[in-house]
Amino acid sequence: MATIKDVAKLAGVSASTASRALHDSSMISEATKERVRQAMAELDYSPNYSARNLVNRQTNTVGIVLPVRESQDSLGNNPFFMQIIQGISSICSENNYMVSLASGRSNEELKKNIETLIRSGNIRKIIFLYSKKGDPVFQYVKKQQNVTCVVVGEAYEKSGSNIRYVDNNNIQAGQDAGDFLIAKGYREIVFASTDMAELVQAQRYQGYCQSLSALGLKEENLTLSRVDAQGNIRRLQKFLAAYPNVQAFVACDDIMAIRLQRLFKETDRSAAGYAIIGFNNSWVAEIASPALTSVNIFPYELGEKAANLLLKPLKKETEPVIIPHQIVERESTPIRAE
Amino acid sequence: MATIKDVAKLAGVSASTASRALHDSSMISEATKERVRQAMAELDYSPNYSARNLVNRQTNTVGIVLPVRESQDSLGNNPFFMQIIQGISSICSENNYMVSLASGRSNEELKKNIETLIRSGNIRKIIFLYSKKGDPVFQYVKKQQNVTCVVVGEAYEKSGSNIRYVDNNNIQAGQDAGDFLIAKGYREIVFASTDMAELVQAQRYQGYCQSLSALGLKEENLTLSRVDAQGNIRRLQKFLAAYPNVQAFVACDDIMAIRLQRLFKETDRSAAGYAIIGFNNSWVAEIASPALTSVNIFPYELGEKAANLLLKPLKKETEPVIIPHQIVERESTPIRAE
Repeated sequence: MATIKDVAKLAGVSASTASRALHDSSMISEATKERVRQAMAELDYSPNYSARNLVNRQTNTVGIVLPVRESQDSLGNNPFFMQIIQGISSICSENNYMVSLASGRSNEELKKNIETLIRSGNIRKIIFLYSKKGDPVFQYVKKQQNVTCVVVGEAYEKSGSNIRYVDNNNIQAGQDAGDFLIAKGYREIVFASTDMAELVQAQRYQGYCQSLSALGLKEENLTLSRVDAQGNIRRLQKFLAAYPNVQAFVACDDIMAIRLQRLFKETDRSAAGYAIIGFNNSWVAEIASPALTSVNIFPYELGEKAANLLLKPLKKETEPVIIPHQIVERESTPIRAE
Repeated sequence: MATIKDVAKLAGVSASTASRALHDSSMISEATKERVRQAMAELDYSPNYSARNLVNRQTNTVGIVLPVRESQDSLGNNPFFMQIIQGISSICSENNYMVSLASGRSNEELKKNIETLIRSGNIRKIIFLYSKKGDPVFQYVKKQQNVTCVVVGEAYEKSGSNIRYVDNNNIQAGQDAGDFLIAKGYREIVFASTDMAELVQAQRYQGYCQSLSALGLKEENLTLSRVDAQGNIRRLQKFLAAYPNVQAFVACDDIMAIRLQRLFKETDRSAAGYAIIGFNNSWVAEIASPALTSVNIFPYELGEKAANLLLKPLKKETEPVIIPHQIVERESTPIRAE
């Protein structure tokens, strides 16, 4: 999309002269106006656009793109997003930037809303709160001129001058979780997941496998449903019948960990009978019973870092920025009684 | 703040003529320009402002004001906010409105950020996601010309042409929770809270008291700490020693309900030994053990309604709009065994 500066350059005038010509100012000669009009035509320049950018020069806004929501609850159920947004907001307000949200119920709606954002303001800085392979929404944004993006999540494409990535190292986090349980004396450790097609789960699983295979231990995966509570009872019973020596679980996230604690009770097992470690260190970890050991992935800091990358001048940094994680130890992972 | 329309009116010209005069268009006579300039001076009209509003005519934005965050986790810990924001976003994108966020770590910072929002865009529509008595931030926004507000929460001030309220009826919700437990056969019912200075808790307590006193039952309040887990064990034990016949709890929210379930176990009581009902119907209600009966307050619908009130033409509605609540029954409130 051409700017007033492009028009001015092509017409061989200053930007302010081009702007005045555009507004048909009496200060500008008809000959100059004609040159500017021709440049506008050549560049397919939209006057509305330019006027907006001109007057909005100080209106800096960062756009935040939320993942497509499949249901009303989908995002509300994940405290992660609100914390990232707060981290972004904090850095933006320190730097006098505003924050706008783009959300949608489908890729099409989301794209339309981002289009509105870019068109209507001078939004040239965008943070994606998700990363999806070949995401059409991201592909659209990438093509926009002068737009800089930070993606919170997996770096599917190369970082460049206008794309940056911020993420946790979920493989390392999975490995650390496995190592932690091993150090506590556990050897028969199972990874509990809902959907290995989800990259974060797959990466944590990969790390867990690395941890176990380093000691020649055998990995196992228990897949449970997010919705079918009754079916999960059956799945757990079948699994524990096949693997009666299980001692501990690496749960793909805190929700899964608490689901497991509940299933143990429902199948007349003590929740304290198995060690469990979760991920995200969400508020439920503290009030779980037993209180849940969990890997903190620092979503607030993810948001802060994303905003900082976007607002600070570009450095030649092209590797994804990794926010370190940290295991928060609670009661669910005692030293194993022999 | 004067608009281009005010200038046009005072100068006795049309808004488009005033705008052209402002941009020094050659289509406008010098005499008219002078009249417009005088009107601008008289009204202390800021051309930048006007230019922005003019070109941004289609750039409609709704500002969302988040409560001051005391810690990094404070909002992330409440899935409520993300769901309200999603409800607002959904209505806004249907109506081609953008959504901007204002947040801050202090009243001053929040006010500054809202000021930026109002100044820099044409944000004249604002939703407060909280209600606080005498809130200086709200007082500031109220004074802005042409700003319409919807407050999600208690109507501390009169609704008027530019202020609307959307809320749940928390007193009724508290009463319904009490009635529900009574209908299940419980008589010795305690209200568990963290801080009665918080209006929502106080209102739910009031409703609970109404429910019990209607049957001549005695109300009791157990106050637990949000942070002091060890102290809570002592508090619960002391309370249950003083009131050994307690049968059921109305918890001020789901977090409190799960905290109670955990405390029962830590004090060697069965969580199933007491009926519990919570509020908010958050995702933890489903995976609590036993699964928690909870009052759904429909945050997504609160957000939708707030946005609809703000975007639709003003009606003469002055009463706060109430979003109905609904009890979602799960395992934590069985019919009382005699």
